[in-house]
Amino acid sequence: MVKISIAGASGYTGLELIRLLAAHPSAELMVLTSETFQGRNVAEVFPSLRGIVDLKLRPLDDDVAKDCDVLFLALPHTAAMSKLPDYFRRDCKIIDLSADYRLKDPAAYAEWYAVTHTHPELLAQAVYGLPELHRDAIRSARFIANPGCYPTSVILALAPLFKTDWADLNSIIADSKSGVSGAGRKPSLATHYGEVNEGVRPYHLASHRHTPEMEQELSALAGEPVRVTFSPHLIPMTRGMLSTVYINLNEAITAEKLVAHYRNFYKDESFIRVLNPGEFADSHHVLSSNFCDIGLTVDSRSQRLIITSALDNLIKGAAGQAIQNMNIMLGINEKTGLMSPAIFP
Amino acid sequence: MVKISIAGASGYTGLELIRLLAAHPSAELMVLTSETFQGRNVAEVFPSLRGIVDLKLRPLDDDVAKDCDVLFLALPHTAAMSKLPDYFRRDCKIIDLSADYRLKDPAAYAEWYAVTHTHPELLAQAVYGLPELHRDAIRSARFIANPGCYPTSVILALAPLFKTDWADLNSIIADSKSGVSGAGRKPSLATHYGEVNEGVRPYHLASHRHTPEMEQELSALAGEPVRVTFSPHLIPMTRGMLSTVYINLNEAITAEKLVAHYRNFYKDESFIRVLNPGEFADSHHVLSSNFCDIGLTVDSRSQRLIITSALDNLIKGAAGQAIQNMNIMLGINEKTGLMSPAIFP
Amino acid sequence: MVKISIAGASGYTGLELIRLLAAHPSAELMVLTSETFQGRNVAEVFPSLRGIVDLKLRPLDDDVAKDCDVLFLALPHTAAMSKLPDYFRRDCKIIDLSADYRLKDPAAYAEWYAVTHTHPELLAQAVYGLPELHRDAIRSARFIANPGCYPTSVILALAPLFKTDWADLNSIIADSKSGVSGAGRKPSLATHYGEVNEGVRPYHLASHRHTPEMEQELSALAGEPVRVTFSPHLIPMTRGMLSTVYINLNEAITAEKLVAHYRNFYKDESFIRVLNPGEFADSHHVLSSNFCDIGLTVDSRSQRLIITSALDNLIKGAAGQAIQNMNIMLGINEKTGLMSPAIFP
Amino acid sequence: MVKISIAGASGYTGLELIRLLAAHPSAELMVLTSETFQGRNVAEVFPSLRGIVDLKLRPLDDDVAKDCDVLFLALPHTAAMSKLPDYFRRDCKIIDLSADYRLKDPAAYAEWYAVTHTHPELLAQAVYGLPELHRDAIRSARFIANPGCYPTSVILALAPLFKTDWADLNSIIADSKSGVSGAGRKPSLATHYGEVNEGVRPYHLASHRHTPEMEQELSALAGEPVRVTFSPHLIPMTRGMLSTVYINLNEAITAEKLVAHYRNFYKDESFIRVLNPGEFADSHHVLSSNFCDIGLTVDSRSQRLIITSALDNLIKGAAGQAIQNMNIMLGINEKTGLMSPAIFP
Repeated sequence: MVKISIAGASGYTGLELIRLLAAHPSAELMVLTSETFQGRNVAEVFPSLRGIVDLKLRPLDDDVAKDCDVLFLALPHTAAMSKLPDYFRRDCKIIDLSADYRLKDPAAYAEWYAVTHTHPELLAQAVYGLPELHRDAIRSARFIANPGCYPTSVILALAPLFKTDWADLNSIIADSKSGVSGAGRKPSLATHYGEVNEGVRPYHLASHRHTPEMEQELSALAGEPVRVTFSPHLIPMTRGMLSTVYINLNEAITAEKLVAHYRNFYKDESFIRVLNPGEFADSHHVLSSNFCDIGLTVDSRSQRLIITSALDNLIKGAAGQAIQNMNIMLGINEKTGLMSPAIFP
Repeated sequence: MVKISIAGASGYTGLELIRLLAAHPSAELMVLTSETFQGRNVAEVFPSLRGIVDLKLRPLDDDVAKDCDVLFLALPHTAAMSKLPDYFRRDCKIIDLSADYRLKDPAAYAEWYAVTHTHPELLAQAVYGLPELHRDAIRSARFIANPGCYPTSVILALAPLFKTDWADLNSIIADSKSGVSGAGRKPSLATHYGEVNEGVRPYHLASHRHTPEMEQELSALAGEPVRVTFSPHLIPMTRGMLSTVYINLNEAITAEKLVAHYRNFYKDESFIRVLNPGEFADSHHVLSSNFCDIGLTVDSRSQRLIITSALDNLIKGAAGQAIQNMNIMLGINEKTGLMSPAIFP
Repeated sequence: MVKISIAGASGYTGLELIRLLAAHPSAELMVLTSETFQGRNVAEVFPSLRGIVDLKLRPLDDDVAKDCDVLFLALPHTAAMSKLPDYFRRDCKIIDLSADYRLKDPAAYAEWYAVTHTHPELLAQAVYGLPELHRDAIRSARFIANPGCYPTSVILALAPLFKTDWADLNSIIADSKSGVSGAGRKPSLATHYGEVNEGVRPYHLASHRHTPEMEQELSALAGEPVRVTFSPHLIPMTRGMLSTVYINLNEAITAEKLVAHYRNFYKDESFIRVLNPGEFADSHHVLSSNFCDIGLTVDSRSQRLIITSALDNLIKGAAGQAIQNMNIMLGINEKTGLMSPAIFP
Repeated sequence: MVKISIAGASGYTGLELIRLLAAHPSAELMVLTSETFQGRNVAEVFPSLRGIVDLKLRPLDDDVAKDCDVLFLALPHTAAMSKLPDYFRRDCKIIDLSADYRLKDPAAYAEWYAVTHTHPELLAQAVYGLPELHRDAIRSARFIANPGCYPTSVILALAPLFKTDWADLNSIIADSKSGVSGAGRKPSLATHYGEVNEGVRPYHLASHRHTPEMEQELSALAGEPVRVTFSPHLIPMTRGMLSTVYINLNEAITAEKLVAHYRNFYKDESFIRVLNPGEFADSHHVLSSNFCDIGLTVDSRSQRLIITSALDNLIKGAAGQAIQNMNIMLGINEKTGLMSPAIFP
């Protein structure tokens, strides 16, 4: 059994890791940390785990990496950034779900996160854990920077296009709609029930921190700098994410041709479902699953492609993808523990 | 008192007309029609009206237009299209909330609504009832084609730009998020609770019937054909609508300059609130009101303007705007009965 | 115009007072206080008020009572308890929406609120502001203790029974379901979106602080001590409350007879709607209104009466009732500013 | 592998059976039926199943029972009642999730369901499939009448009390709050989004068809007729159910003693979690799981016991319990395929 530690186990992403790993046939949960709830049993903090997991929450210290095979860091950004060198001295593999090691350029990190990176020398060792693009590197990696939820949905929506010259890479707009759980479990006015329910709220338009992450990956695919206009919106639901991505086509292309190309591009992927021409991705159908559904629609009147991309922000957008990375790193079947279909309704 | 008839009083838009007109100091509800619930008191059908309105629902016939000063048609499209000539013989003013007389071009109607217009000769008499653009024509009109909810939010978001040469009119994308009440009160799988709650669903991408309505009005403002890529989404809330509108800028312009221009453009408008630079429209703050909030954000990295436009789909997007039109037609203060602030939370 | 001060204007109840009073033909908002947002315009804090109210939020001090005719206290319990003597020196009428002066017995206050009452000598001057029971006392009062939302719904459901000997007063159970806004605007884990959405949670069963308030009023009606088993539940909606109240009948009585009795009891009440036999109260139909709907159902198999009572917790359960009290105190029509029907859907 | 047929596979309960059985290590889905969607692939009807299940929906005929080991009937009541004799001729085990064979007394069926039972002679063969009460009978059964969701939550809440003389069996009141999915997938005004969202609605108070089912089982436990006052409420969520059950205590008993008794009673049960004294069941923590959480609270002021009982109406209240019954009938581990913890948030 693979011994697992989870740092930050009392947040929503931490809980999702616990839930999925508790059912994973090769994983054994060993250490869970939480500053807020240290000393309490995790099943007291999350009563959904009663009868499933029986572990006490510990404070975060270096020992978290001591006796485990895989360490998941499910902490807010900067919380563990400076501890990575310590963890590296241990023998474990590390999957960091924060944003700290996603951007290769420390200057970009400083610009978008308004804080100086403490260990820029480790950035080169971190593999951006999007298996559909970087599976080989993940396989041999020790340290994974697990992608953000928005970038996962937008990059997967666009990646196949970069193998073609069909689209104008300067015209990308991503309009994303997210459930509230992406904001975490810490109470705030922005996530207070009365402020969210029964309304839709844009936030951080053209300034969200996931923008450089999308641009880094898309630029790498393009071989040239690519810019994205990114607009996140909070909608009244707990889970799920839909990105509606717009890009101008250089020529008239049918949805059928696009679907065929996308299906070919993703033909070996277990978690990408390219929909039929004319179908739109719908977050209901990926809720609680590790799937990312992608729909392709051509607006022939304006020669524009509209890509809809749906995922569960806490699974393919966070914990599920992290476990997918773990499976790859460990050389076990990538689908292990991750093939539950969406729960509907 | 102005005598009012409402045809289609047992739908959501009909109810909203009743609710608002019951509190309107100059209006007196005389006739309410409903095929489904004919013979029943409207307060049985909508218990919210108990103690407020006491009228029996009648079937729709020509008498609906007989003794009233203003006739509101809150029916599905085509349901009353062929009856307009009859109503015209009466002495009343007519406000049609359906789509039947919005498009000036009967060919466009046939194309988008898949039905031949029975009275194209009346199209010229219908004034498109968006007061912010057509107040003078409304003032002297007898017959109003009340705008759709999506077009209202998108046209108001863009109209001021058409007085400038700041933006590329070929680059318009409108990504709209709507509550479910816009689909009306008739049960269907698409509006069944379990199919809507806890998920976001795109629909009719690049093919929604409100597209030609937006294009008609924007083209008239531009003096040349304008195309819109329009993407509606259903989100899990009853009321409210947010349109996020994208357009490329021809030059670097600040949000401050744009806000100043928009505020000047709308300086005499009671129901348009142009937000400060950096603020985004949020549907929570217009819920249950006749306001349309407009936010202007410049993505300077891509030289693209992002306009957020929020309204209540049943009020400024339907019944409230219809009453605003009535007020104008009757020469009474345009704000009468419409100045309630949004209910929050 | 009646000059109004509101202490605690940046909470949900404060906002609801502002919204309703802004539309009240005899009221003029003069002073709004907020510790959290002092110095900011109230329309910045609540963008729903843009274009409606333009007042700066001030800190709470004695001047809040200086130049006003009516002072509303919309503060958490204990926050203003000790200031009442100061306010009393001014010439204004006071309506306290907190729980501080509702319980006549300071020992009960100490027991249930776990704090000693600082001014028990003022309790006798406070009139419990439930107009349907205490209208005469309210008319001549200077100081109103405005009822809690749960007690309003439960007491109104039961009061008419106390004029009869039909029911066993030892058998009262009140099972209430409330929207989340009753918990106020202060963020907490209990009101965090992800913890509320898509689930129902009981809380403070048999120990909620509104229990002694119900018992005080019901005991006064009975002329003997009455106990209530009270079970509040949080359900995933922002507004609205439904209490399902159970009481054993001493004899077989029809719903028709009960309805007739209730309608007679409430025959002069503008805001109580007693439903037809067989109809159940539904919070949808009172949302955003000052109505309390009451339904009467007899379970003849067990000879038990089931009373359903619905109201909007922020209106008839708080701000609307406070304004109703103000109207009575000022001798103006009790319905003024309060007759908007529910917004549906 | 156990070969499975599901009749009524395009409803919500049918889908839940498919979802759970697709992940069940011993089950193989063979036949799925649907009248509405016959001829279509089930993954078209439920896109959540894409990549998971690939079966065509067939019309319901006798062959549904032909080659299967277990036949699940997930049809509306009466839809399959008359077909049971045909199915019985086959060699399969049958689990009927409808209400048709739950009531032992055909007169009760006629009274509550307003239809005459066509095969009263089969009622004796049907085992009421509540494993916590009837495990031995289920083990040797061929035909299971799977319990309703409300009865499951209420009976499990009360059953341990019937081993004691602590409570007054004439005082039972069950106040239940349910998500909307229990009403199925057929669109209706009652389940239309706008009619459900943001409100709570009682329905069928004192007349719901699940009442005799509760009473049958509780009477059997008591050895004498027991009556229940049952009040179901629809609340704005898709899944989940909470029953708050009231019963008078004959003597002062502590919650601690009750919890100890309940834990002993359910000591061998995998899916019953008796909470600590003072904890309340919360539907969030059982969502998407087969658990039933039970909380025990004593209102010592009125000597009344308040039991809170939470489950997922589609799982422990329907499909999960059906599979639990299947496991028992087949002699495989009862927990197989059913131990997923709740998804939270």
